[in-house]
Amino acid sequence: MLINRNATDESASPPRRKRLKGLHHDVTPIRRLLFGQPIETGRHEDSLLPKSVALPVFASDAISSVAYATQQILLVLGGAGLWMMQFADTYRNLTLGITAAIVLLLAIVVSSYWQTIFAYPKGGGSYIVTRDNLGVTFSLIAGAALLIGYVVTVAVSIASGVQNLLSTPVAATLNIADKPVPVAIFFIALLTFANLRGLKESGLLFATFTYLFVAVAGLMILLGIAGPYLGWEVYEEAVNRTVPSEARHPAQALAGVALIGLTLKAFATGCSAMTGTEAVADGVPAFRHPQPLNAALTLFMMAGILAFLFLGISWLATDLHVVYWEHEGKAAKPVIDQLSGAIFGKHGVGLRSGLYYLMQFSTAAVLFLAANTAFADFPRLSYFMSRDRFLPRQLANLGDKMVYSNGIVLLGALAVVLIVAFDASVDELIPLYAFGVFTAFTMSQSSMVARWFKLKTRGWYIKAAINGFGAVCTGLVLLIVGYEKFLDGAWLVMLAMVLVVLMFRVINAHYEDLRARLTIIGWKPDTRAFSNTVLLLVPSLHKGIFPALRYARSLSPDCRAVHIEIDPADTARLRREWDEYVGEDPPLVILPSTYRSIIAPVLVYLDEVQKERENHTVTVVLPEFVSRKGWHSLLHNKNGLLLRYYLLNKPGVIVSNVRYFLDGRDGSANVQAGEAQEEETP
Amino acid sequence: MLINRNATDESASPPRRKRLKGLHHDVTPIRRLLFGQPIETGRHEDSLLPKSVALPVFASDAISSVAYATQQILLVLGGAGLWMMQFADTYRNLTLGITAAIVLLLAIVVSSYWQTIFAYPKGGGSYIVTRDNLGVTFSLIAGAALLIGYVVTVAVSIASGVQNLLSTPVAATLNIADKPVPVAIFFIALLTFANLRGLKESGLLFATFTYLFVAVAGLMILLGIAGPYLGWEVYEEAVNRTVPSEARHPAQALAGVALIGLTLKAFATGCSAMTGTEAVADGVPAFRHPQPLNAALTLFMMAGILAFLFLGISWLATDLHVVYWEHEGKAAKPVIDQLSGAIFGKHGVGLRSGLYYLMQFSTAAVLFLAANTAFADFPRLSYFMSRDRFLPRQLANLGDKMVYSNGIVLLGALAVVLIVAFDASVDELIPLYAFGVFTAFTMSQSSMVARWFKLKTRGWYIKAAINGFGAVCTGLVLLIVGYEKFLDGAWLVMLAMVLVVLMFRVINAHYEDLRARLTIIGWKPDTRAFSNTVLLLVPSLHKGIFPALRYARSLSPDCRAVHIEIDPADTARLRREWDEYVGEDPPLVILPSTYRSIIAPVLVYLDEVQKERENHTVTVVLPEFVSRKGWHSLLHNKNGLLLRYYLLNKPGVIVSNVRYFLDGRDGSANVQAGEAQEEETP
Repeated sequence: MLINRNATDESASPPRRKRLKGLHHDVTPIRRLLFGQPIETGRHEDSLLPKSVALPVFASDAISSVAYATQQILLVLGGAGLWMMQFADTYRNLTLGITAAIVLLLAIVVSSYWQTIFAYPKGGGSYIVTRDNLGVTFSLIAGAALLIGYVVTVAVSIASGVQNLLSTPVAATLNIADKPVPVAIFFIALLTFANLRGLKESGLLFATFTYLFVAVAGLMILLGIAGPYLGWEVYEEAVNRTVPSEARHPAQALAGVALIGLTLKAFATGCSAMTGTEAVADGVPAFRHPQPLNAALTLFMMAGILAFLFLGISWLATDLHVVYWEHEGKAAKPVIDQLSGAIFGKHGVGLRSGLYYLMQFSTAAVLFLAANTAFADFPRLSYFMSRDRFLPRQLANLGDKMVYSNGIVLLGALAVVLIVAFDASVDELIPLYAFGVFTAFTMSQSSMVARWFKLKTRGWYIKAAINGFGAVCTGLVLLIVGYEKFLDGAWLVMLAMVLVVLMFRVINAHYEDLRARLTIIGWKPDTRAFSNTVLLLVPSLHKGIFPALRYARSLSPDCRAVHIEIDPADTARLRREWDEYVGEDPPLVILPSTYRSIIAPVLVYLDEVQKERENHTVTVVLPEFVSRKGWHSLLHNKNGLLLRYYLLNKPGVIVSNVRYFLDGRDGSANVQAGEAQEEETP
Repeated sequence: MLINRNATDESASPPRRKRLKGLHHDVTPIRRLLFGQPIETGRHEDSLLPKSVALPVFASDAISSVAYATQQILLVLGGAGLWMMQFADTYRNLTLGITAAIVLLLAIVVSSYWQTIFAYPKGGGSYIVTRDNLGVTFSLIAGAALLIGYVVTVAVSIASGVQNLLSTPVAATLNIADKPVPVAIFFIALLTFANLRGLKESGLLFATFTYLFVAVAGLMILLGIAGPYLGWEVYEEAVNRTVPSEARHPAQALAGVALIGLTLKAFATGCSAMTGTEAVADGVPAFRHPQPLNAALTLFMMAGILAFLFLGISWLATDLHVVYWEHEGKAAKPVIDQLSGAIFGKHGVGLRSGLYYLMQFSTAAVLFLAANTAFADFPRLSYFMSRDRFLPRQLANLGDKMVYSNGIVLLGALAVVLIVAFDASVDELIPLYAFGVFTAFTMSQSSMVARWFKLKTRGWYIKAAINGFGAVCTGLVLLIVGYEKFLDGAWLVMLAMVLVVLMFRVINAHYEDLRARLTIIGWKPDTRAFSNTVLLLVPSLHKGIFPALRYARSLSPDCRAVHIEIDPADTARLRREWDEYVGEDPPLVILPSTYRSIIAPVLVYLDEVQKERENHTVTVVLPEFVSRKGWHSLLHNKNGLLLRYYLLNKPGVIVSNVRYFLDGRDGSANVQAGEAQEEETP
């Protein structure tokens, strides 16, 4: 036995390593151009994120929700007639009250997740926490809720970002103001692409915009509140206060039970502000060390910024009596646009319109960043669930940029489906949002309670109380959201969750079955005598047959050449040439084809050969030649492909294509003029 | 060496023959359902046609052209203003004169082809006759003209048939009167399908309709001429005599040179009546014996019927002063419809309207039969030209119904392209027609002259004179058609002919190059020492690996197992299991993959192995398992496919997939519960 052990059984030497990298380039030059240099496995540590980068990457989802949370509250209240000036006080009080309630809920959830981060430093997403403490069934529900939630996050954030871009005068000039769907798809494609290039690079790229958004939105809030006292002119005409007649019904909802219903509905809608709070706990391993502390601090900063912006925007919106409703047949102007139009001023060229555009573009940017959060989390959760055999294993493949490429592409595709199905409408997408998010919150919090009861570490009852309070609060909100938003879209999310959980189960059953079928534990390999017959298909004798002939002969002592006879005249010639150029080894077998099929005689003969011996494999060698130009292959029969297809489904049969390169690449071509048949395989 | 010579080297025994037929069914049950039983190679004789069937199959093209020939003459004359009543005499005299001239031309061409049939009893199409006598270049021009002509025949015939169907009141009721394109495509698809089922079956099916058409059209002509004297009422209101104002220009064309031009233009258009005359000579081998005599008699019968119908319809059309022009914004009513509407009567329910519908439907049927002629001839000519290496060899494959299936499908597809491009308009398609047809006529006739000059058999000068006169006449017509119809569409046909001839040349060059590269004449096979290294790719150790392992070991003494290391933890486990279950043979080689690619490390290692020895082939064995259900494969990586793709382009590398059937079909599966890794290839 001739084995060059040295060349094989060692780690990659530096020159081989260099060749590997070079070859990686050669193999997929287009991929390299698009996605940049590959990243070595060992370099994973380098892509860990400092807090300053982790904040925009993981918190932008939560922070950006201020772009639509206030707006959706106003939509519900306005729809009940509260937009009318005589109800201005109720409009303001309800809006601010609901905002404050949501901020309080945020504080509860954050303190609950603070504990989760320290308990699960390797990533404490709802799926993993639930699996550990409440078992598989609940964890699958949490997993389904989260995966669906990430898709909706991308759709809502992109739709809202596009809404804010298209409400600017420049969009009207560019004539794209009423084309949100293609614009949204463009940005989803862009995000998908950026994420395929690697997390860190996109993190640095987007960090700038989050901080810009926080700064400009903060400035807008301060100017909006303090400005009028300092002589800063506010353009109230930028605010929409007229609504179409069909919405002008009197506010019958302002008494008793109806008022409670209205408040709950607005609250349920406003809870969209809470989305994304989960992201930090899920992404702990992406932080620099000490990971839990850095993650917890980031969570805290995020909550603080969110609370400030949310309260500020709700305050300004009610102060200026902003109405969010469609206007003169056009889509509703987003609240951020109305506020920045009023406080900064959207027309002309100057500092104020500059600030207006900065506000709009940074709002859009931070919303796209929010979508980016989902692009970090969806593939990570898919990886966890794939590792647990609940999702296809392809989702666990780390790409050469250390990202889970398949998950990224899947998320982008699903988000595009939602955008198209809901016409990129923020108002129609939002109802899909909160139910999944609060399912995950509740599962996660309840799991933590179960964990403290199990572990009973020092001071466990205080921790259990904190998580328990969180679980009760988010559970209550879940009920409210499920009830108030059922017909608006929550039913769709519930149905999707059921289907996704079923899918998890079916996939898992397949992998478990496979595992059982393939295990070698307690099994003895087959040691019976084994033989292999080689059949070389010979359509005619030409130079391209000889490499295959030599190869076929080397494989087994039992080698036979097989010719399918379509025209007996060809057979006579072949036999003559065979005797002259080849001889007796291997013998030539002629199979007549009564119906001119290439496939059927081979299959019949194959059955006969297989029955000759026990434990017998048949190798079919197909000689084929490779044309020098691609279009040449159009001029040749595709019988080899067809035969291969039929043979692949026969147990005990192995197909080997031996290729003859007509361009002489294999060094065996040797052009000479003369006469030959040129049929190809077989 | 273990060879069971008995089982292999003999003709198909009866039981094997039965199995072949049965298997043919098994392999492609859907094909069988659609196309019927396969036909054995020896049974070709059975599908020869008696004259009574050959006439409709080969002559319907020529006969059916009466449906549009008169009509197109009237279109040209009417366009010059001759539709006006004061020019009725000129209108009639020109129409009848041109018709008579074309019938005379037909007689000349038929007598010329009569000689061709006896000279070429194996099929004397223009391509073969020209190749034999004028050489390759001219034969390619003839071949291109014919192939293009067949495509146009299908398009024109179908369009005209559909025109006659859609002009009936019942089409208006069905609301399809203005949808000729989908209706035409439907009928092309139907014809393609019928022809794929075999020539004889479609011949018998369609024969009925040709004879019906001849009978009903003959009755219409006799009734139209003799009827008025016998008291048969003719509904002149069915005839269109009003034309829109833009066509009401005075007939300035009635003097001197302009009149000659008009006459030539109408003549050129009317020559579309001549198409299809070639078909009989081309199809001699499809006739019963004695083949030439039967074919010649069929040609004579065909010409007689054509002359009678063409003269009769032109007579009736001028007698009733039929105008063929668009009317009240609707497409022009075809002449056959106007005549049968007038002579039989198209409204009400009774004998007369029954005859009208019989006329219309049999006209459509015979036109579809004409298209069918092309479906017999196009594949046959493609076969001849493919055999001569001017067309892809796939066109020479006889299908299991003894028809050239690929040619049939190609013709159907090209005809659909024409129908769509020209909106199924007869008037726009007709100008494409005559140029190609008369090119083929002229080539064929000239070739026969050359042949007589070469052979100088008894009485050759008389035969040469007959063919020479035919050649001069058709050559003159070719010039007239090329000049008068150039801008109407002949330019397109000329361009297509040039491109098709170039294509013939390029294809031929490829096949000749291949022949030179592959010939073994004067060549000695490579007899150097040859070795083969086998690399078995092992992603993890499970039951599915062992059949591949056993197989790989049997192929060569130099066999190595190769593992691509993505995660070193997996490697340690694999090495442990390898030592326990496999041992030292084959040795396990670990290839680290720095960038987690499966492909690159294999390619790098392969290069190293290939350099170990001279004249060295490497076989890569890829174990893969076959899932029990199709959708399961969605749950597995497709790395094997990708690797195969890269390896196929490396000379000296052969890829063998060894498949493990999870459903136990190969008898090796043996389900046991337990723990195993389940990654698949590689």
